[in-house]
Amino acid sequence: MSITRILAEYIVDSSRHDVPQVVRHEAVRSFFNWVGCAIGGCRHDAVARAVSALGPFAGSEQATLLGRDSRSDALSAALINGISGHVLDFDDAQPRNTNINPSCSVAPAALALGEHLGAPGSEVLHAFLLGLEVECRIANAIYAKGSTRWFANSTAGVFGAAATAGKLLDLDSRRMAWALGIAATQSSGLRISFGTMCKALDVGRAARNGLTAALLARSGFTSSEKAIEAPRGFAQVFWPGSDPAPIVENLGRAYEVSYNIYKPFACGIVLHAPIDGCIQVRNENSIDPTKIARVELTVNPAVIDITGNPAPASGLESKFSVFHSAAVALIDGAAGELQFSDERVAAPLVLRLRSRITATKDASLARDAAHVRIVMDDGRVFEKTVRHALGSLRNPLSDRQLEEKFRSLTQGILTHGSTDTLIDLCWSITDIGDTSRIARAASGRSA
Amino acid sequence: MSITRILAEYIVDSSRHDVPQVVRHEAVRSFFNWVGCAIGGCRHDAVARAVSALGPFAGSEQATLLGRDSRSDALSAALINGISGHVLDFDDAQPRNTNINPSCSVAPAALALGEHLGAPGSEVLHAFLLGLEVECRIANAIYAKGSTRWFANSTAGVFGAAATAGKLLDLDSRRMAWALGIAATQSSGLRISFGTMCKALDVGRAARNGLTAALLARSGFTSSEKAIEAPRGFAQVFWPGSDPAPIVENLGRAYEVSYNIYKPFACGIVLHAPIDGCIQVRNENSIDPTKIARVELTVNPAVIDITGNPAPASGLESKFSVFHSAAVALIDGAAGELQFSDERVAAPLVLRLRSRITATKDASLARDAAHVRIVMDDGRVFEKTVRHALGSLRNPLSDRQLEEKFRSLTQGILTHGSTDTLIDLCWSITDIGDTSRIARAASGRSA
Repeated sequence: MSITRILAEYIVDSSRHDVPQVVRHEAVRSFFNWVGCAIGGCRHDAVARAVSALGPFAGSEQATLLGRDSRSDALSAALINGISGHVLDFDDAQPRNTNINPSCSVAPAALALGEHLGAPGSEVLHAFLLGLEVECRIANAIYAKGSTRWFANSTAGVFGAAATAGKLLDLDSRRMAWALGIAATQSSGLRISFGTMCKALDVGRAARNGLTAALLARSGFTSSEKAIEAPRGFAQVFWPGSDPAPIVENLGRAYEVSYNIYKPFACGIVLHAPIDGCIQVRNENSIDPTKIARVELTVNPAVIDITGNPAPASGLESKFSVFHSAAVALIDGAAGELQFSDERVAAPLVLRLRSRITATKDASLARDAAHVRIVMDDGRVFEKTVRHALGSLRNPLSDRQLEEKFRSLTQGILTHGSTDTLIDLCWSITDIGDTSRIARAASGRSA
Repeated sequence: MSITRILAEYIVDSSRHDVPQVVRHEAVRSFFNWVGCAIGGCRHDAVARAVSALGPFAGSEQATLLGRDSRSDALSAALINGISGHVLDFDDAQPRNTNINPSCSVAPAALALGEHLGAPGSEVLHAFLLGLEVECRIANAIYAKGSTRWFANSTAGVFGAAATAGKLLDLDSRRMAWALGIAATQSSGLRISFGTMCKALDVGRAARNGLTAALLARSGFTSSEKAIEAPRGFAQVFWPGSDPAPIVENLGRAYEVSYNIYKPFACGIVLHAPIDGCIQVRNENSIDPTKIARVELTVNPAVIDITGNPAPASGLESKFSVFHSAAVALIDGAAGELQFSDERVAAPLVLRLRSRITATKDASLARDAAHVRIVMDDGRVFEKTVRHALGSLRNPLSDRQLEEKFRSLTQGILTHGSTDTLIDLCWSITDIGDTSRIARAASGRSA
């Protein structure tokens, strides 16, 4: 049997009762984290411009635009919520070969369709978990050596969204294979989009297009049933010579969601270890940032390669500057969305401290490790070694820490009361009879 | 200046008065041919299933679904009309390196947006011509050696649709560059889709996505401004090592639409020469097809390679069988959509004659040439040599012949009177104040 067909049958046959409780809870955490990110991103220019451009072409009010006081057809909602959930780059992530952000292309399809259908939360969560599984397995196999050409979130994400929507639509295995085939021919997203609004658009498109694929397949719209593995299919076209066989190895025994981590800081994942070290050393020693003589960071070489920008000119650029990140971490004791604003980049205190920071490569340090050494004006020295950065797989955010992140994201968009209600609803998603309760609680009208 | 930016400035600066009348007329012929194809395809299962699947998510009535008694938002109309216009494989074509069908991804965007805006026909036609130009230049450069991996109609078509829509929306050159960049990151469409409904879907998606790109760019949604030529941009990702420079060579001096040909027969383009020969020899000699002993075809090797199927099982397969095609051409004196139905494939007379046909490769024959030799039961022999098949660049369909094709496609969908009206409107598109007149005349409600 072909890989596409095996995958399709697995999705169709999978029951939520097959999945261990600890895995299901990780899927709940992933969904929870995404809802916070999508609300937090809802006022970003990229979202506002997409709504303004495409709103006049949208259909009837089937699904909620998270954090905004409006509704839209489910396909448009998947697109807009997809943009909103990724635009802050504050996602879950799998810092392995692909660095994929698994939830951002799948969750918008799950929630928009779940709301439209009024589906039980337990079904939406299981469909979401299966979407992550399909997406990550495809990305890991095809981009086994990484990819500098294609954007994993969108090129693999469209399969995840199709799988999720196909499961919610209760497709049979032939139609599920068509859904995956229709996803394959829509797969797209160039790395050249990074640093522009198109990066978040690619994610929203993957959500919308995957949902479209499942809807078309339900109506009998045909595609190849070997679209992933055929000689002219997805795998060979996107990565000639790649081996799609691992996509279906150990299906139902190992779960991709188990590898999800959640960013505590609103910036590039390689920055998390030095930021974690700076915040810890600051808090433990009540350091006055105005009296720091110099900061010496020792980091994995990737930190310098990816985030070595000494003088970022904008908030967006500062998310990829180790110098800015360490400075705000030491000054504010935080590295949330507020620390990466245009204003913060130009703040005199930040500029002053930034210039006193050096960073040295050390290949013996893992990517989630770092060493921070602070020398004060009076000569005192404070040090901190981070073995596994906060939020990494070996030092994951607790449910409570995820809630703190969630609250920081909904601040100013939802009331405290609404945020409390939404947090409770998200944690108890598997007990909710109608998923639209979550979507409606995440609407901006409650602020 | 970058290629993307040069292209953007050309689109923005181009005036219809710059274009020679003969070129403009070829654009009118291309548009005319596409309208007929889109009406002819409107009842195909692929269209019906897409409307059924996606209709519930569509927006307000901004644009006409050709041949159908309904309207939709302009983005959805571009998608559905795009599927409808390509599903019969009865397009215009450029039988050069890419075999692209230029109009099918561009015209749906031009008409849907033109109708929505109420734009003058002269503007819609010029925007359409520019879209063809952008699409074909990109395809010819990137797929200079052909492509067995990517579908040119969709991967290049999305740029054409974006250019057309961007021109109609009067974008400035920076926003036009963004529109091309947003198109680039949406570019997709696998050859594995051939033989399934996804082939026509890919075309419809290109139209819809190109229009989406222009709308987003108008609202200030950003992309790379070097999305075509950058190291990680469209050209190098879709065809590593390709040279995008020819995309902007001779801009405004040579026009791609000049190379468009129009299929007289509803099947693979390589079959046109033997079909033309069969119809001519039949008509010239009043051949009784029940009294044919054998038929000997001599053809370019590509005919056997691509259409060598001796026993097609369905109407769709028969479009790629030289034996079926020659048989129906000799029996019916035609090779329109009716000749490639499931019923015709199983007709006893067709089966009987099909088994008496042989085809021999001759590499000295061009792709648009063929030789037909008929031996009758009574020993008489009739022969015909085709140097340039009807519809080829050297033997193009006249405007009158395009009208005959158009009438055959609208038969049973529009009344004769409505067809006459629509034909007149299409020929005079450059004199029409509001393009919605054409769209409304192409609505199925007039049948």
